[in-house]
Amino acid sequence: MTNPNAHAVERALAYARSEEGRFLEELFAFLRIPSISALPAHREDVRRAGEFLAEHLKALGFPTVRVYETEGHPIVYAEYLVDPSLPTVLFYGHYDVQPVDPEAEWTTPPFEPEIRDGAVYARGASDDKGQVWLFLKAVESFLRGAGGLPVNLKVLLEGEEEIGSPNLVRALSREREAWRADVVLVADTGMPEPGRPAITVGLRGICGLEIRVRGARTDLHSGEFGGIVRNPIQALVELLARFHDAEGRVAVPGFYDEVRPLSREEREAIRALARDEHELARTLGVPELYGEAGYSYLERNWARPTLEFNGIGGGFQGEGTKTVIPREAFAKITCRLVPDQDPERIRERILAFVEEHAPRGVVTTVTAFDSGPPYVVNPDRPAIAAAARALEATFGTPPVYVRMGGSIPIAAPLAQNLNAPVVFLGFGLPDDRIHAPDEHFRLEQFTKGLEAMVRTLAELGKSPAS
Amino acid sequence: MTNPNAHAVERALAYARSEEGRFLEELFAFLRIPSISALPAHREDVRRAGEFLAEHLKALGFPTVRVYETEGHPIVYAEYLVDPSLPTVLFYGHYDVQPVDPEAEWTTPPFEPEIRDGAVYARGASDDKGQVWLFLKAVESFLRGAGGLPVNLKVLLEGEEEIGSPNLVRALSREREAWRADVVLVADTGMPEPGRPAITVGLRGICGLEIRVRGARTDLHSGEFGGIVRNPIQALVELLARFHDAEGRVAVPGFYDEVRPLSREEREAIRALARDEHELARTLGVPELYGEAGYSYLERNWARPTLEFNGIGGGFQGEGTKTVIPREAFAKITCRLVPDQDPERIRERILAFVEEHAPRGVVTTVTAFDSGPPYVVNPDRPAIAAAARALEATFGTPPVYVRMGGSIPIAAPLAQNLNAPVVFLGFGLPDDRIHAPDEHFRLEQFTKGLEAMVRTLAELGKSPAS
Repeated sequence: MTNPNAHAVERALAYARSEEGRFLEELFAFLRIPSISALPAHREDVRRAGEFLAEHLKALGFPTVRVYETEGHPIVYAEYLVDPSLPTVLFYGHYDVQPVDPEAEWTTPPFEPEIRDGAVYARGASDDKGQVWLFLKAVESFLRGAGGLPVNLKVLLEGEEEIGSPNLVRALSREREAWRADVVLVADTGMPEPGRPAITVGLRGICGLEIRVRGARTDLHSGEFGGIVRNPIQALVELLARFHDAEGRVAVPGFYDEVRPLSREEREAIRALARDEHELARTLGVPELYGEAGYSYLERNWARPTLEFNGIGGGFQGEGTKTVIPREAFAKITCRLVPDQDPERIRERILAFVEEHAPRGVVTTVTAFDSGPPYVVNPDRPAIAAAARALEATFGTPPVYVRMGGSIPIAAPLAQNLNAPVVFLGFGLPDDRIHAPDEHFRLEQFTKGLEAMVRTLAELGKSPAS
Repeated sequence: MTNPNAHAVERALAYARSEEGRFLEELFAFLRIPSISALPAHREDVRRAGEFLAEHLKALGFPTVRVYETEGHPIVYAEYLVDPSLPTVLFYGHYDVQPVDPEAEWTTPPFEPEIRDGAVYARGASDDKGQVWLFLKAVESFLRGAGGLPVNLKVLLEGEEEIGSPNLVRALSREREAWRADVVLVADTGMPEPGRPAITVGLRGICGLEIRVRGARTDLHSGEFGGIVRNPIQALVELLARFHDAEGRVAVPGFYDEVRPLSREEREAIRALARDEHELARTLGVPELYGEAGYSYLERNWARPTLEFNGIGGGFQGEGTKTVIPREAFAKITCRLVPDQDPERIRERILAFVEEHAPRGVVTTVTAFDSGPPYVVNPDRPAIAAAARALEATFGTPPVYVRMGGSIPIAAPLAQNLNAPVVFLGFGLPDDRIHAPDEHFRLEQFTKGLEAMVRTLAELGKSPAS
């Protein structure tokens, strides 16, 4: 129960190395729980994953472990306070995962983890169960291998990250005093390539919605009724085609109004990190990269907002042909937002746009999903420097400071409510296929990530608070 | 085996009336066979439906019954020739049915026929098993109730109508001598409303295709890759939105080039048959009717070509949200064609249009489905007059001569190969929900249709050949 010295770190690292096989076995048990937060049918599985973590925290010796009930999935919270003179670190991670469809495209079933080609394959292996596990095992390595923690710990694990963290945002404002910390540590990000550690200093925000176009009461025969009613698919595609202009820009009025322009220095820094575009296109299997005119691919992904169609459906989807005019068609949309766009204002502008262009002869409705604001952190904060030292000691090279095209909707509320800097320390790789079939997490990233996590906790213990 | 006199018709009608309950029971057995020609999983069911008919024809006493094997589903052919001095009628119908999705929207399962509210509910009840059954039972009524047939009969039943009759077209040109007839009788059409018999004198043709847009090798996370690659859904909707102009016209160059303009007389005749547009919109459940500018709804449906999107799909279709850029998206399209459009030329123009507008950053492919030309018949032919007399005797009012928005792809090849007029005599009603959930056939239509079929066979026996 004392601030560990350099020997303590070495002992924790030695413990981690010797126990890594067991750590992976335990992770497999966690990965086997199909905790898909978006699907009501998996409600109990999500709860089970939360309870699995709560039990594990108790087993590790956390004096306080709570499972908060919410209107949605539970929040798991734990505390292990060792010394008021040490900094307090709040760790955040999530135990829910994305849906698995198209399930037929998985080489092995998504909830039957398997090691092959040097990686763990399973839904959640990289996003985010594998990374949560790194943290818990770093904690265990200090407790069992070094005799105590180097910092006071608060652990916040939620089951709704993949659906926009609706209940954690509410809990955060209620529990802001209880959860107060000097630093927030989040392990849900990645590195640009193996051997190149990174600290994420910018994340895009998100807002999502679904557009549904309804025509006749039932599906109609396209011969009997073709030419008589408006086809909902036709109405939908004509509406959706208005969302982007010919240059790939989002055509919703006001969409870019609050976008913070990139400085010349930021553009230089991004350029230095960019990969060869042709090679990237080849890796992805596309004829060429594509996006908003006037920006490089990495600028578009890190610092420009996007509006993506995530799904579309309507009518006959089987083999061959069916001569039907479907009764409805729908599309799912998410926007990625950058500073200083506000998700609510963006959503309002999209709603106004849909209303303005709502097609005749059909009924168009819009459902809003949960949202999260964009987030950027100043890389000069001492907590970031502490994590940077840990990464350099582990990988032999200093980290790069990157932004991320993705979103962690809870990032900005965490920083605001707890009034602490957020350190995004992550070990995913770009080809981990998160949210897609064959998601995986490389074993080498697990080993290095565990080591870096041990060192980061030690460095944060030595660092001035935030 | 003699030309029946008026007494024979009355005896056949009396037999039909007394046996109608059993006729329906037998039809139920036919409807229970899920003979969906578009789905490979139902291949054996389609064969079973064909064999069911072949057995039934044998049991009725047809001296010749053949099951032709094809590359697809079998063709059932039967002959009952009674007297070379009598006209020969070739009856055409189909025993395959449309797919049943969305299956959840059926009140009772599609292949468990049920009578409720005065109608038989089942896939195929109206299109076309119920109508094939009317014909077979009219034949039985003559054979068992009146002692013989009033005409020579050839019966041609196929299992590929719903997928464009690819193999029947080939068989027709091979068997044109064997199948020669004076009149072709087709029962696969309908009446505009109960009590108003109709003879269809025009059908639209059809050509179908599928467009598939492929992006990256796998689904991608829309945060990690949003702004980097072209979204296949976005590329697809932008392409599809080009197919129609703001006035509802098809924008494919040359699409209307061969469309025969409507004469003032034809427009007058169509106007006389039109329903109130507001009432029709209310019945269908749409805010208003919609289609190509400058034409009434019935002109658009009967005499103008259309291009309809029958299905669209790509990405996440479940509940809620999934932040994915899908690897591909697709749309299914069918065009309804009118004289003198040629399906092959129309398809070539669509292919050229897709090629011209193929979106960058993705790969677009087109698959063609089978097609059929449009067909019109001169209502002054003696065979049409014979059918008209039968309908007037049955319904107490002369038939209207209608066109149909739908297609029977085999109509034009039948007429051309057999060099005989086609009489479209059908008893479906506009709200039968063919090709949709809860397809049904009204019992009253079965009763009247059976009576009309008996009378039509008798009238064709008295009429000069074609």
